[in-house]
Amino acid sequence: METSTFSYGQLSAFTKDIFLAIGCSEPDATLAAEVLLSADLRGVDSHGVARLSGYVRLWEAGRINATPDIRVVHETPSTAVVDGDSGLGLVVAPFAMKVAIDKAANAGTGWVSVRNSNHYGIAGYHAMMALEKDMIGMSMTNASPLVAPTFSTERLLGTNPICVAIPGGKEPAFVADMATTTAANGKLEILQRKQQPAPAGWIQDKEGNSTSDAHALKTGGALLPLGGTREQGSHKGYALGSIVDIFSAVLSGANYGPWVPPFPAYVPMPENMPGKGIGHFFGAMRVDAFRPKEEFFKDMEQWINRFRNAKTVPGEEKVLIPGDPERAYEAIRRAEGIPLLQPVVEDLSALAQKFGCKL
Amino acid sequence: METSTFSYGQLSAFTKDIFLAIGCSEPDATLAAEVLLSADLRGVDSHGVARLSGYVRLWEAGRINATPDIRVVHETPSTAVVDGDSGLGLVVAPFAMKVAIDKAANAGTGWVSVRNSNHYGIAGYHAMMALEKDMIGMSMTNASPLVAPTFSTERLLGTNPICVAIPGGKEPAFVADMATTTAANGKLEILQRKQQPAPAGWIQDKEGNSTSDAHALKTGGALLPLGGTREQGSHKGYALGSIVDIFSAVLSGANYGPWVPPFPAYVPMPENMPGKGIGHFFGAMRVDAFRPKEEFFKDMEQWINRFRNAKTVPGEEKVLIPGDPERAYEAIRRAEGIPLLQPVVEDLSALAQKFGCKL
Repeated sequence: METSTFSYGQLSAFTKDIFLAIGCSEPDATLAAEVLLSADLRGVDSHGVARLSGYVRLWEAGRINATPDIRVVHETPSTAVVDGDSGLGLVVAPFAMKVAIDKAANAGTGWVSVRNSNHYGIAGYHAMMALEKDMIGMSMTNASPLVAPTFSTERLLGTNPICVAIPGGKEPAFVADMATTTAANGKLEILQRKQQPAPAGWIQDKEGNSTSDAHALKTGGALLPLGGTREQGSHKGYALGSIVDIFSAVLSGANYGPWVPPFPAYVPMPENMPGKGIGHFFGAMRVDAFRPKEEFFKDMEQWINRFRNAKTVPGEEKVLIPGDPERAYEAIRRAEGIPLLQPVVEDLSALAQKFGCKL
Repeated sequence: METSTFSYGQLSAFTKDIFLAIGCSEPDATLAAEVLLSADLRGVDSHGVARLSGYVRLWEAGRINATPDIRVVHETPSTAVVDGDSGLGLVVAPFAMKVAIDKAANAGTGWVSVRNSNHYGIAGYHAMMALEKDMIGMSMTNASPLVAPTFSTERLLGTNPICVAIPGGKEPAFVADMATTTAANGKLEILQRKQQPAPAGWIQDKEGNSTSDAHALKTGGALLPLGGTREQGSHKGYALGSIVDIFSAVLSGANYGPWVPPFPAYVPMPENMPGKGIGHFFGAMRVDAFRPKEEFFKDMEQWINRFRNAKTVPGEEKVLIPGDPERAYEAIRRAEGIPLLQPVVEDLSALAQKFGCKL
């Protein structure tokens, strides 16, 4: 499919303009643009500027508050609950992660559960905020229900990602950022656009049979938890997605399971919602709350080097450290720009026209 | 294969006698027996009394200290590092989990990384200690290297389990206790005994090809991370196993990756070991450090009921909540006894004879 390439600066300025246009403050619009575009930089195209018009539609539907009063509503020395006041998740999440980091500075670790938020972009951005403080960062969120638990035909969980970012000393950080499903929904969307079949274990049809139909979500199908089938451990993926849901929403008072508000603004809201908005969960652990930094980094460097230089199966060049592929994308895209598919460009052009902004 | 059934009390008294015979104190022997047998009760036969002779062999090899001075060597309000002084993991782990729980009582959460320990039984026992305090418990450990990272032929990780235990209010607790591999090594051992093939995605041969040979570990093969293949998400299982390894050992100063001391006493120790013993990691989070307990439990009960009553695929009776299968095992085995395979009975009889204890 045809693509056009834009520089990071160009997309960043445009995205900020759109957030300003819907009423965000200058600092919020700057931050939201940075968070959203970190996905495009890191090669997670499904979570970047391609979603900008989706956020705008949520704002138009009255589901996003452009001037939220984000605040801590409950706390202990190492924990807090943050209410996002229906703000952009792109702004609520860094606020909450900052609370976690501040708690960790004092108590060794900080853990923050968030209610009343919206889609927060990529999990990785928030977790990685901890790295520059020599802390381990964690980030997770629940999301629109698209995933069936093992043995179920109902969509009760989101793709509920987990990110764990660990500083690597002289080596680049270890950053595992992953959906708790076999494949993220964005991967499926790529197959849909290319009219290609879905691999086994990615998706089931409405009766719960594994299917290669990449469009099966439209006919009552569901994404599958990591593992794909019971025999191959899907009950573990289901458990991981559930833990994300509970930490993000049952601990905070957000909506959980099938009651999580859907990202597409045209999908009706669930009935009898038990909480407020969607939920996130963040953690920060000071490395030196456990060991002197130098000792930790020495071992972390050795860990990374040992794994990176492991013997490979024939045909594979290297064993990758989590975060390597995204870092490679970022280097290329900062230098050469960010390629956008034509439908995304058209979507952004329509936004530019609507708000009188320049793309 | 033939089995004999023993009552919990009988196996418990015997196991305690063996731990006393190798020099453990009365309270340590009692605790170690309780932790070890919790695996048999919960149906995790590979981690229970079947391993008792393995612990004894480690003690005979001088790798287990029956009278350890287990102590906190570093701490902050919400963290600690515990040195297990080469003690039984079955005793070191509950000590460390208790530190995490005490920290959580004061700071909201507690996080403890452990070095210089040994095999700690099932992850679930330790995480579940938090439940009676209305806390969420977490437990993870690294283990003998048997698992190849995605794209590698080398065994660099253990089956590195994670347990998360969440109190359920009026419902039984949510307890997810899982290896970060497609299948735990114990599941493979069952296939080996029955001379059955391994399902796809469980194991690879020494060249890194998926194999149905359940004995492939003996010829240079490796267990596969959850996901099984790259296309089905094995890089996520690899990342999860790595996080367990780093939290358990790089944070504490234990051995990590290929340097983790092997459980079988006859396997030589790795060269140039970077740390001390094996590592664990524990967490405790007070529910009311986030929300009033009553609110949390009301939502948790609704979460559990919604998932348990989800529509099932044809042929399946119920969607399970993590912990359901183990709870069902425990109810049966407490009432009807614990069945042991004949080779395990013979192993225990040999121990009885060696130490003059009564089975």
